[in-house]
Amino acid sequence: MAVTLLGANVEGKANFMALGWATRVNANPPMLGVGVHKSHYTAKGIKENKSFSVNFPEAEMIRETDYCGIVTGEKVDKSSLFEVFYGEVETAPMIKECTLNLECKLVETLEFPTNYFFVGEIVGAYSEEQYLTQGKPDIKKMEPLLLTMPNNSYWKVGDYGGEAWKIGKSLKGNEK
Amino acid sequence: MAVTLLGANVEGKANFMALGWATRVNANPPMLGVGVHKSHYTAKGIKENKSFSVNFPEAEMIRETDYCGIVTGEKVDKSSLFEVFYGEVETAPMIKECTLNLECKLVETLEFPTNYFFVGEIVGAYSEEQYLTQGKPDIKKMEPLLLTMPNNSYWKVGDYGGEAWKIGKSLKGNEK
Repeated sequence: MAVTLLGANVEGKANFMALGWATRVNANPPMLGVGVHKSHYTAKGIKENKSFSVNFPEAEMIRETDYCGIVTGEKVDKSSLFEVFYGEVETAPMIKECTLNLECKLVETLEFPTNYFFVGEIVGAYSEEQYLTQGKPDIKKMEPLLLTMPNNSYWKVGDYGGEAWKIGKSLKGNEK
Repeated sequence: MAVTLLGANVEGKANFMALGWATRVNANPPMLGVGVHKSHYTAKGIKENKSFSVNFPEAEMIRETDYCGIVTGEKVDKSSLFEVFYGEVETAPMIKECTLNLECKLVETLEFPTNYFFVGEIVGAYSEEQYLTQGKPDIKKMEPLLLTMPNNSYWKVGDYGGEAWKIGKSLKGNEK
């Protein structure tokens, strides 16, 4: 899974937590879902303001990112680690140092036994030219972190593997 | 995102589609959610049998995996591409050639404008000793594929980056 930083205002202050449980859930309009343990301080802010952000740190931000997964915003002000900015959703704090920031308006809150699953519509996306190729996010320029569990390890992205929705076409016509 | 193959029986026959939109949604019991466009043949099978599987192909299975994202099971029998097996959920077909197979019982079906989001409880996990280290899945042995959109590219996993929930501890005590 990709490692991201989930942002929300909690009691009027920007807070961030490390997040691996995230996926797109709807194509059009674009929606994103995030699985957050009910005990997290960030969950409180998402419910409070009905908004959140998902920010992609570079591999070189590994210490700050991991730190956001270790300490709670209830005790420590994590906003001071980063340059925080806001977009059109005024309660979804984003991180300037990240390579890609997605701001979301909460669409639905699902409650599972230990976790909330917050579904948001992506209403804004922020990046910089240096991380894009032909206007699209370029993972080799972004250098995001990956996470595996339960061995709790971070990984970098490796070599290009091939073109999606194309490389498999060579098997067409050989169907049994 | 990791590239997986989503399995379901449709009208009594095993079918697989390429899936990138997947995440854990609950810690305990372990649950997994998958975002599937409503038009997909596989969605029909998941609703029919209330079960599905998520299978992780190796990078060398890139052609077969991509092919499963190109052709529909409505027209082509994709089960013949793989050695198919079943676990305790008798309607969740899994792929022997994959490095890790998770079988799920459907817990909840969420409907969004263009996609379903199926949430399943993971009731079985299958792998082989060659893909594990100390009994846990080892991403360097599994060699999974990653996918980026909208530039539609596959990637391999690169170098180890550090220990999660640990490497950030060095920042503790420096809080403002």
